[in-house]
Amino acid sequence: MIISLMLALIVYATTSAQEKPQIVRLAKIEVDSAQLDRYKILLKEGIEAAVRLEPGVMTLFAMYEKDQPTHITVLEMYADQEAYQKHLQTPHFKRYKTATKDMVKKLELIDVVPIGFETKMK
Amino acid sequence: MIISLMLALIVYATTSAQEKPQIVRLAKIEVDSAQLDRYKILLKEGIEAAVRLEPGVMTLFAMYEKDQPTHITVLEMYADQEAYQKHLQTPHFKRYKTATKDMVKKLELIDVVPIGFETKMK
Repeated sequence: MIISLMLALIVYATTSAQEKPQIVRLAKIEVDSAQLDRYKILLKEGIEAAVRLEPGVMTLFAMYEKDQPTHITVLEMYADQEAYQKHLQTPHFKRYKTATKDMVKKLELIDVVPIGFETKMK
Repeated sequence: MIISLMLALIVYATTSAQEKPQIVRLAKIEVDSAQLDRYKILLKEGIEAAVRLEPGVMTLFAMYEKDQPTHITVLEMYADQEAYQKHLQTPHFKRYKTATKDMVKKLELIDVVPIGFETKMK
């Protein structure tokens, strides 16, 4: 009984942490137009690997502006600072960072605070 | 058997539509600092009502910048143009729009195209 209560608490704590990322950020990236197609492939690969392989990487939404396709925004959510630091050390992030080094002309990281996050997507 | 196949196809089609919003947008909003607290409450209410009540409003993520709290970004996803037009006619959207008319100093709508949307949140 006590063990199941403890398990329930652990599950609850894990779920809560998953639902409330402590780090939420907008990365604004400007990419060299000549290398844009390749950049988008590398970004997509990096994002998919991070969310699939890292428990603390909760959301990575990458998009480009229709009218300015070299202007990219990534909405990033990490469980906490530790998860983010771990993310920076992963092989897939290092691969992305190295491969895109000469493609990225500008990178701005903007810390944000959620007002409301509502979705019906999974 | 044929009916269950058809049903399965319909469910699949609905799910696919839900997973691929046709309209994705970043709304960049600048708010009068004196009315910011009230604005955030109204925005949060509007977002919650829209995603809860409207099948075609798939995602509304609203956030403010830590270093510039009057700068707000909303990531918006609608199933299609029709869903978006319907959204504009709902009582909750009209209430938000009227109530915040004098709070919003700037509004920029930026159409974006997904590169990769990955999340483990529900």
